[in-house]
Amino acid sequence: MAALAPRSALITGANRGLGLELVRQMAEGRSAGTRHLLACCRHPDGPRSEALQELAKRHPEVITVLQLDTTDLSSIQKCSQQAGSLLGAGGLNLLINNAGIIAHGTMQTTSPEEMLATFNTNVMGPMNVTKEFLAHLRAAAAASGTAGMSCSKAAVINISSVLGSVDITAQSYSAYPALAYRISKAALNMMTACAAQEFKQSDILFAVLHPGWVKTDMGGEGAEIEASESVGGMLRVMDSLTEKQNGAFLNYKGMPLSW
Amino acid sequence: MAALAPRSALITGANRGLGLELVRQMAEGRSAGTRHLLACCRHPDGPRSEALQELAKRHPEVITVLQLDTTDLSSIQKCSQQAGSLLGAGGLNLLINNAGIIAHGTMQTTSPEEMLATFNTNVMGPMNVTKEFLAHLRAAAAASGTAGMSCSKAAVINISSVLGSVDITAQSYSAYPALAYRISKAALNMMTACAAQEFKQSDILFAVLHPGWVKTDMGGEGAEIEASESVGGMLRVMDSLTEKQNGAFLNYKGMPLSW
Ligand SMILES: NC(=O)c1ccc[n+]([C@@H]2O[C@H](COP(=O)([O-])OP(=O)(O)OC[C@H]3O[C@@H](n4cnc5c(N)ncnc54)[C@H](OP(=O)(O)O)[C@@H]3O)[C@@H](O)[C@H]2O)c1
Ligand SMILES: NC(=O)c1ccc[n+]([C@@H]2O[C@H](COP(=O)([O-])OP(=O)(O)OC[C@H]3O[C@@H](n4cnc5c(N)ncnc54)[C@H](OP(=O)(O)O)[C@@H]3O)[C@@H](O)[C@H]2O)c1
Repeated sequence: MAALAPRSALITGANRGLGLELVRQMAEGRSAGTRHLLACCRHPDGPRSEALQELAKRHPEVITVLQLDTTDLSSIQKCSQQAGSLLGAGGLNLLINNAGIIAHGTMQTTSPEEMLATFNTNVMGPMNVTKEFLAHLRAAAAASGTAGMSCSKAAVINISSVLGSVDITAQSYSAYPALAYRISKAALNMMTACAAQEFKQSDILFAVLHPGWVKTDMGGEGAEIEASESVGGMLRVMDSLTEKQNGAFLNYKGMPLSW
Repeated sequence: MAALAPRSALITGANRGLGLELVRQMAEGRSAGTRHLLACCRHPDGPRSEALQELAKRHPEVITVLQLDTTDLSSIQKCSQQAGSLLGAGGLNLLINNAGIIAHGTMQTTSPEEMLATFNTNVMGPMNVTKEFLAHLRAAAAASGTAGMSCSKAAVINISSVLGSVDITAQSYSAYPALAYRISKAALNMMTACAAQEFKQSDILFAVLHPGWVKTDMGGEGAEIEASESVGGMLRVMDSLTEKQNGAFLNYKGMPLSW
């Protein structure tokens, strides 16, 4: 169970898959210090959010479900306002940009529309969410009163994929092309590396994590590991991060991956 | 002067900067085998294309100026049709996706519109141009009658940048952020790595080149090298490429760069 204990955390795409499991493990393994788990999803009252709503009912003192479509700027802004009211001066310690979509095609079979939709959700989404929540992250960094960086102080974790590693493309492309997805995750990796530099003076840590190949709607039934194992690992990794890993690309076991 | 001697080549963004110098050196240093240099630009009759039109007048037997806006699918399709008529069964040996734009801001100062415009020109452009010219590249590969890969047979060279290297971001970001540009070039690198795998059975070589920091409108007057040096180097590198460099990321001196 998670050792990670930020006072507050926000998870996007929290209604199913890895996002839901992140909320579950953070709620059930939380320390007394954890006050706010903001579980964000597109359709809080839709059929695909029932499991999240159930979970929130079991932990009403800590989980708040908020509407957030990461491709809709006004939705992000509204969510940031609501979060600001809930979080107060303590700000937001940990933002996990988890929401993502996949596209499976090759260059020949991927349409411009799929390319743009994938870029929009997997790159513009995390960028716009990060920007709109910056004030809350800065507040958390300022409120912490400690030196250095950590996910319990102020951090943005972007859930990327090993498929965003250009380095391994030659070995993996023919078995699993997903061109638009690979491009979007490589772009997300670059965005994270840039942000890690841009916000290091502000003591906001940035890193990209690869969750492993996980049995979710996206990963499919043939995937290697359960969401519980992936999330348990990622929470341990997040807990271990310091300024030394600012800008790092790690898998759920904490192993560094090549770009 | 260039040793590279494809029968046919197409250069995007050929009206100024590196694109214009590529056409110039390929025209002036060409071997007897070079038949078609398709110099493409957005506004063939506009004021920014005068130097290209002058150059084309000096080499009317080899340079054809064609209209091509790489962000406009119908323009790409029309250009591909025109190219097809000119090239005939020999197809297109070398496609150089050179057209690009830059955006200088940080994450905090870059708008969603700038992000999308940069992605559109620097990633969607090369992808859509490549797809629409695939039939001509395949024709060239089939017509060559030789084994292996080369830029004189069938190749797509994407002009990227060292700023697309995630690996060097930590050292270079604070001096020169260009967030949207870095993201677009990292994405272009990934696209190239994918295409290198997808089309290797078709004997179409893909590689990304970094031209150096060059005195053009984009590079600015403070840049390190002249366009003539950059292009001379890139043409030597293109001439040297074989299937061993399929998917490589090299600078204008032929040095491999990290992703
Ligand atoms: N599973 C794997 O093997 C694997 C491997 C590598 C990386 N990843 C990454 O891990 C992250 C989570 O993946 P997963 O396996 O949990 O995927 P998943 O089961 O398909 O769930 C995706 C989640 O993202 C949400 N989402 C998509 N677009 C959204 C938007 N515009 N606004 C808000 N939420 C949105 C979905 O909400 P809706 O229910 O509303 O659609 C859903 O909650 C993704 O970034 C993915 O790329 C997964
Ligand atoms: N200069 C450097 O130091 C440097 C370093 C690294 C990489 N690069 C890369 O090298 C390539 C060429 O750069 P450069 O220095 O020659 O830049 P430049 O002087 O700014 O010229 C850019 C060229 O791209 C064309 N272009 C832009 N958008 C276009 C579109 N939608 N359709 C067709 N053409 C378009 C421009 O045409 P218009 O005249 O119509 O605008 C112009 O011909 C770019 O990909 C750039 O990223 C340059």
